[in-house]
Amino acid sequence: MAKDKKVEQITDMDVDFAQWYTDVCRKAELVEYSSVKGFTILRPYGYAIWENIQHNLDSRFKATGHENVAMPVLIPESLLKKEGELVNGFAPEVAWVTQGGSEELEERLAFRPTSETMFCDHWSSVLQSYRQLPMLYNQWCSVIRWEKTTRPFLRSREFWWQEGHTIHETAEEAKAETEQQLNCYADFCENDLAIPVVKGRKTDKEKFAGAEATYTIEAMMKDHKALQSGTSHYFGDKFSRAYDVTFTGRDNKLQYPFQSSWGVSTRLIGAIIMTHGDNNGLVLPPSIAPIQVIIIPVAMHKPGVTEKAQEVLERVKAMGIRVKGDFSDNTPGWKYAEYEMKGVPLRLELGPRDIEANQCVIVRRDNGEKVTVSLDELETKIPELLQAVRDGLYEKAKNNLEEHTYFAETIDEVKDIVNNRGGGFIKTFWCGDVECELAMKEKAGVSSRCIPFVQENRTGVCPICGKPSSTTIFWGQAY
Amino acid sequence: MAKDKKVEQITDMDVDFAQWYTDVCRKAELVEYSSVKGFTILRPYGYAIWENIQHNLDSRFKATGHENVAMPVLIPESLLKKEGELVNGFAPEVAWVTQGGSEELEERLAFRPTSETMFCDHWSSVLQSYRQLPMLYNQWCSVIRWEKTTRPFLRSREFWWQEGHTIHETAEEAKAETEQQLNCYADFCENDLAIPVVKGRKTDKEKFAGAEATYTIEAMMKDHKALQSGTSHYFGDKFSRAYDVTFTGRDNKLQYPFQSSWGVSTRLIGAIIMTHGDNNGLVLPPSIAPIQVIIIPVAMHKPGVTEKAQEVLERVKAMGIRVKGDFSDNTPGWKYAEYEMKGVPLRLELGPRDIEANQCVIVRRDNGEKVTVSLDELETKIPELLQAVRDGLYEKAKNNLEEHTYFAETIDEVKDIVNNRGGGFIKTFWCGDVECELAMKEKAGVSSRCIPFVQENRTGVCPICGKPSSTTIFWGQAY
Repeated sequence: MAKDKKVEQITDMDVDFAQWYTDVCRKAELVEYSSVKGFTILRPYGYAIWENIQHNLDSRFKATGHENVAMPVLIPESLLKKEGELVNGFAPEVAWVTQGGSEELEERLAFRPTSETMFCDHWSSVLQSYRQLPMLYNQWCSVIRWEKTTRPFLRSREFWWQEGHTIHETAEEAKAETEQQLNCYADFCENDLAIPVVKGRKTDKEKFAGAEATYTIEAMMKDHKALQSGTSHYFGDKFSRAYDVTFTGRDNKLQYPFQSSWGVSTRLIGAIIMTHGDNNGLVLPPSIAPIQVIIIPVAMHKPGVTEKAQEVLERVKAMGIRVKGDFSDNTPGWKYAEYEMKGVPLRLELGPRDIEANQCVIVRRDNGEKVTVSLDELETKIPELLQAVRDGLYEKAKNNLEEHTYFAETIDEVKDIVNNRGGGFIKTFWCGDVECELAMKEKAGVSSRCIPFVQENRTGVCPICGKPSSTTIFWGQAY
Repeated sequence: MAKDKKVEQITDMDVDFAQWYTDVCRKAELVEYSSVKGFTILRPYGYAIWENIQHNLDSRFKATGHENVAMPVLIPESLLKKEGELVNGFAPEVAWVTQGGSEELEERLAFRPTSETMFCDHWSSVLQSYRQLPMLYNQWCSVIRWEKTTRPFLRSREFWWQEGHTIHETAEEAKAETEQQLNCYADFCENDLAIPVVKGRKTDKEKFAGAEATYTIEAMMKDHKALQSGTSHYFGDKFSRAYDVTFTGRDNKLQYPFQSSWGVSTRLIGAIIMTHGDNNGLVLPPSIAPIQVIIIPVAMHKPGVTEKAQEVLERVKAMGIRVKGDFSDNTPGWKYAEYEMKGVPLRLELGPRDIEANQCVIVRRDNGEKVTVSLDELETKIPELLQAVRDGLYEKAKNNLEEHTYFAETIDEVKDIVNNRGGGFIKTFWCGDVECELAMKEKAGVSSRCIPFVQENRTGVCPICGKPSSTTIFWGQAY
């Protein structure tokens, strides 16, 4: 029964990308399987990444006037059923509570798969006047969707997310909110997570159940597959009507408010792993790294090394940087491997000769570059190097995205890109017909990712039906 | 169907304390009932208080080395049943998921009532060596307990809490952790919430199901009833043995770790309301108030008033204080009542004559005291006044606690205090026998609150059985 921690290698990402991903998730101690089928545990290091994502996004939401709330986790079946499309979309994936204590419930209760229904129900009781609008709400919670196959962060029966829900006096305001929040997600992904994204609209087939329009940000992973990383939905007044949410307008008449919802989830951690990770493990963008700088004293037995390392640690901490020193009796080599696996952006090495020369060596996790830094310049150099890591990561990810984005004129070209050129984002014209969308999936194995906001001012033909079209769409294999 | 917001009075707390409480919860817009029986909604203002409680406690937990994690919300029945006392204690209150999507589950899953089982199950798979100990974990989440009767914050089927779970190499370390966390809660209640508490140990009858010892902090509400405000449990190695959690010790032998758990919940908001509230509504301690200072411009139509109020607002914001200005067209009187209802600690009034005299009037919510403050002294005076509000609240609450704490020698005395003197905390000697504890409940209508840490160095007799004892205990009516 004794268990020893073994130093194990992770699978090479070029040999088996899926296995590499699972290895990183577990060896970096982000996540662990639980005894409940399809449910995972977020371990301290994984949860700390999620907390940093939360803090960053929560500040952004609050800066634009949003407020957090907590809605009940259970939704009566009758309430869920009031909006037909929503319930049809989610019913196959709902977990049902049917017993409370010793009593059999008269009506079964759904563990929330998403909370549009609860928010609408609440608004129907508290909203009275246009003066109360907009109501800009958000909640951080977990939801359950009873998936058949699961993978850490990407698809699990329970996942953690935020769901923003807002109502507005006019359609224009609700649309502006939908757009603002998509831009908020895109900005966060690009600047903080160093993940470039393509912004666009989902097709009717791929949009959220019950939404009038769904907007998305799509990121490209290192295996050239797409990961939908955040979505923002516009509902018009459809749910307001279904749930009888009304207010007295400026004209003194009863009106239905217009609604948006938007969310990102712990899936973003999957995006980070597959956008930046390498064969040494995780690589974290500094903005959300639980440890931004790891200090490793070298030749700790030599007098003064530990003390100097402690002194440097305190100085870096005073800069407001998340820093840790590893003063354990493991070898420096073991420590290097450990914090590389954990994706720490900067490693600061400090040995007796460094101390003598009043310097240290800082190693970037994104490209392995070693920089000798005078101890007098820590306060300027460390922030610069953290920024350099973010920029380096972004550039690599951007190159990956650009190198594997294609324009195809014919279905054969699409197939060739998927089957012989490693896949990627494939742009084509599209007639707008769902039949062609389904045919593309069947023939080339790609699904529609989005109709990008950035369109081309020209006309071509749909590669399936040959009809002329001036709308382009992105296709890809997706997580 | 049109609904108008009416200005409504709240019930007088001396006439009907329970109704006063419910009125405050709803008129201060903390909480709203939902369509799900026994489940409440935390509205933005109520949730903002909870967020401030979370931030404060989370920093305290992290400062002592604790890490946040997320465990699955559903627990298989077989796993829950491994520790007999725990399951017997919680089974009558568990909500069960029996269907996932369209499939009937082979084994029903409990919505967590508490997560000792999940933590132990996880540790049984990841713990290997004493080198990994202690593991100091915490999670912020909601739990469900299927209560028969519910009241906002005090007892609801779903509530929000944090649950700390730790394992240690030795019993002494686990006991020290249990004590440290109780002290953390007590310090937070006293300093930040301005709520004095009595610290002590629960009797065997009142302790947590499966715990070896439960420690508690008990606060006194304005109606002299007790509110258990936080608990910390010591488990010995009981759960470790039940869930087969082991590690290789320093002696190279397999050992069972020792365990603690501890939690506080949204109940604390109930404690705040009933400790500090008055007939004008909520009164919030500054440390957790979503708005610490409300600025009300007076005679806003006069030139320069709005501008000056804006200028003051920016200055107070720059001090790191949570401040808001109300520039709406409601009357100052309406605004005064509104922010009194919401318990804002300081109201800053600014009118044309104040501006001329380079001053403002600041009104304390705790005692109505008005202070004229020079605009040159805002930066020193506002923090002083916020501290004064906290101190004033604490003193009042402390007086209430002391004035309604009694020592009784006989059961008739206990009854007299309960029936004729308004109740309170009643200290007696106690033989330690559960029969006498039950008899006290039956005869005098009070339950044991705790065996206080502060004991008296003398001997008396148990008022029920007459046996000599040197142990004192607190009795009271409780929420």
